[in-house]
Amino acid sequence: MDTLNCESGKSSAVFVIFGGTGDLTHRKLMPALYNLIHDNMMPQCFSVVCTGRRDLTDEQYRDQVHESLMKYSRNKLDDRHWGRLRQLIHYYRFDFTDQTGYEGLKKYVDELDGSSGTAGNRIFYLAVAPEYFETIVHGLHTSGLAFTREESFSRLVIEKPFGKDLTTARELNSKLLKVFPESSIYRIDHYLGKEMIQNIMVLRFCNSVFESLWSSKYIDNIQISLTETDGVGSRGGYYEKSGAVRDMVQNHILQILSLVAMEPPVNLGTDAIRTEKLKVIQAIEEFTPELLRDNVVFGQYGQGVVNGEKVPAYRQEDRVPADSSTETFVALKLHINNFRWAGTPFYIRTGKRLGTRSAEIVIQFKKMPDILYFQRDYIQEPNLLVIRIQPNVGVYFQFNTKDFSSHNDIIPARMDSSYISSAQGNTPEAYERLILDILRGDSTLFSRWDEVEASWMFADRIIGYREQKKFKFPNYAAGTMGPVEAFKLLARDGRQWWDI
Amino acid sequence: MDTLNCESGKSSAVFVIFGGTGDLTHRKLMPALYNLIHDNMMPQCFSVVCTGRRDLTDEQYRDQVHESLMKYSRNKLDDRHWGRLRQLIHYYRFDFTDQTGYEGLKKYVDELDGSSGTAGNRIFYLAVAPEYFETIVHGLHTSGLAFTREESFSRLVIEKPFGKDLTTARELNSKLLKVFPESSIYRIDHYLGKEMIQNIMVLRFCNSVFESLWSSKYIDNIQISLTETDGVGSRGGYYEKSGAVRDMVQNHILQILSLVAMEPPVNLGTDAIRTEKLKVIQAIEEFTPELLRDNVVFGQYGQGVVNGEKVPAYRQEDRVPADSSTETFVALKLHINNFRWAGTPFYIRTGKRLGTRSAEIVIQFKKMPDILYFQRDYIQEPNLLVIRIQPNVGVYFQFNTKDFSSHNDIIPARMDSSYISSAQGNTPEAYERLILDILRGDSTLFSRWDEVEASWMFADRIIGYREQKKFKFPNYAAGTMGPVEAFKLLARDGRQWWDI
Repeated sequence: MDTLNCESGKSSAVFVIFGGTGDLTHRKLMPALYNLIHDNMMPQCFSVVCTGRRDLTDEQYRDQVHESLMKYSRNKLDDRHWGRLRQLIHYYRFDFTDQTGYEGLKKYVDELDGSSGTAGNRIFYLAVAPEYFETIVHGLHTSGLAFTREESFSRLVIEKPFGKDLTTARELNSKLLKVFPESSIYRIDHYLGKEMIQNIMVLRFCNSVFESLWSSKYIDNIQISLTETDGVGSRGGYYEKSGAVRDMVQNHILQILSLVAMEPPVNLGTDAIRTEKLKVIQAIEEFTPELLRDNVVFGQYGQGVVNGEKVPAYRQEDRVPADSSTETFVALKLHINNFRWAGTPFYIRTGKRLGTRSAEIVIQFKKMPDILYFQRDYIQEPNLLVIRIQPNVGVYFQFNTKDFSSHNDIIPARMDSSYISSAQGNTPEAYERLILDILRGDSTLFSRWDEVEASWMFADRIIGYREQKKFKFPNYAAGTMGPVEAFKLLARDGRQWWDI
Repeated sequence: MDTLNCESGKSSAVFVIFGGTGDLTHRKLMPALYNLIHDNMMPQCFSVVCTGRRDLTDEQYRDQVHESLMKYSRNKLDDRHWGRLRQLIHYYRFDFTDQTGYEGLKKYVDELDGSSGTAGNRIFYLAVAPEYFETIVHGLHTSGLAFTREESFSRLVIEKPFGKDLTTARELNSKLLKVFPESSIYRIDHYLGKEMIQNIMVLRFCNSVFESLWSSKYIDNIQISLTETDGVGSRGGYYEKSGAVRDMVQNHILQILSLVAMEPPVNLGTDAIRTEKLKVIQAIEEFTPELLRDNVVFGQYGQGVVNGEKVPAYRQEDRVPADSSTETFVALKLHINNFRWAGTPFYIRTGKRLGTRSAEIVIQFKKMPDILYFQRDYIQEPNLLVIRIQPNVGVYFQFNTKDFSSHNDIIPARMDSSYISSAQGNTPEAYERLILDILRGDSTLFSRWDEVEASWMFADRIIGYREQKKFKFPNYAAGTMGPVEAFKLLARDGRQWWDI
């Protein structure tokens, strides 16, 4: 390796993956690394150490990665770039539950660091089940692996879930903080790596039209829908202990909500942005027992038909008890009590086994008074700005226009950003962006502890309510858009979910 | 003819065309009548009398119309609808400069009225050169043709130009008013019949997003461009006495400006709308000699290349003197001095033999402050709402977004209303709408006298300035976008024409 080409080792690092033989590594991390190399975004000096319990040689492991890349990389594999990645990858056999093994790993990493010119920089990526976070961090601590030279960095990357409630999250966090400072902890929320999520701030703060209208003065309500057609599949055991609120609301949805509702930050620095995001979560009206009763709807899917296929009920899924009270759907209405948003409700829904798979934000603008054209028998459709996160990616605006094919009707029409959609064929995936940011030390797209804490405070109330009260589950058939109460939640306010 | 089916004769009429063998009749009026029949928009009781000097039988004339329809109708000709129109058309040989002939025409129309069940209703469409307007109206007057039964209507339709300046327009108007009341005079501005022009009010008053932003508070400037690639062709004689200001600004452009800038009317009634439009023209800042010098740019085309073809200079055109001082291009900047628009300039340009043919309105919104994303080296593109009138028809919005193909750039993207464009294949043409409105007695899309008067007051100042001062013509090459001064007019303000 040509150490002369290392750009002062600034973002060079040994990238240590715990869970190197797991799904996340093969499906997301390796393709992300390959694509970053392909797009010439990677530092010259870099090494990847994948740890796992299985007995594999470097070559065997590399062959497995190669196979995964063939399946999952967005860029077609070519010899040059794969050759480069291949030589960076090392396999280290190691049982991370065995604390005695960390010394050996430390020695291995140190040696690799010396030969790779990575300047003592280390990234520990915990691609493992959350119950092992503490064990691994403990091992990193006692072995000294977590600590590096003063001018170098040592970063910890953890996947969600971060705790299962406020108490466990606090416990976990205090243990992490004994080893890594807050600024070195990267809590991954892969939603934040999605291009369109990052685009929310650009749309808001780079367009005078949107920024001028971005308040309760002009906006009637905002809807955030993250709907899945999948069931829990083989993850019934995990999901049974989680449910939709922990799985989606506490993290992804509150993050999206924060980006949509935040005040403009004083600058684009990490802390300035995260401070404004935190303020949004802090400003959410507290759920009283009455609000929980009136504004929260839980659901659990029964059997039904999704994409033409008969699918079982949640209670029939593998490793799910026949009387499970876990919610696979939640819809809620909340208010953000600050001057910008007071009076504009936010409606949120997420669930599994719904009729469509999509993630989108709908900004519904206030209606016009019923005068002039709307005095007649026209039904007034509101202006909508729709930000589509997946599977389609783009922005569109619904407005009213003359129907040119008739002589006098007014109809809603759409302006669509086909530009963005068409550019989507081969755009960086979330993990590419996130890994790059970890290398650069930019934690803007990761959750700060106080955000996580505030999110759990919010989520715990909702989860507590579900746990206290007996709900009549299942209450929606797989393949529908959730329980009828979720529709009533908006109908009561004279509103509706926009299924785009 | 089945008179029983006539719906109380409300919009039934004998439609008398002066200039029945002329271009306008064959290219526009007959296709419009055919398409209205085709779309089932015509009253049951209806007759068309086409007058002309040529010696033709009904059958010969109808055959000529049939030929024209084959060329110009947007709906394909079918036997049923053509059969219906054919029997409605009558040819009456008649020299309208001969005042003795009007008695005969009256007798003919009266008889037709009796047999057609048109209830005494008459529409006189003057599809002739403007110098004959007075002659014909005089004949309609002395023969009594203009007058009908009390419960019936008698309407006069005239094409532009309405006078050649304020004085001649006033003279003409006072002569028309002796015969027809203002409410029975339909001054055609075919631009107002275009779908997208009618859509301006719908866009503004049926969309809370647009209406909320429609003022100098949010809008940086508004541009109206009506550009043609054609030269004067065989109309050099007419154009030499007209020029761009009379030909385009006094009528089409001021009408468009009024619709874009008007306050919301108290209702959708004709007078309420026309009153608001008039107020816009009255609020235009008066052109002082200094403003004329600084804010008005005249141009006349020299030879050049348009659409790959070499074309002559204006002064080389047929029936144009070699030292002509007529403007074929005008660009100007004006202010509307009311609370809504003070501070937002309107830029207008129109001309012949330009590089592109298009009619469009560009609303340029204010830029964002140069903070956050724009603090870096990004060049900030403004938000634009573009209303395209022709040849493309639609609405689109330019906004800023992340460039998903790069990792961090911000680029302008477009939301486009392909919906509207795609519906354009076969939409009613301007004359269909206008003829229907004349039948219905709806004069919203026609100019009221006080609007015409105010428009001439505005135009006369500009024309007077051009006539007083010697301009160095030609000053732009055919196929370019006009004289360099037209670009400087905006560049001086740190702005630019948006060529979309």
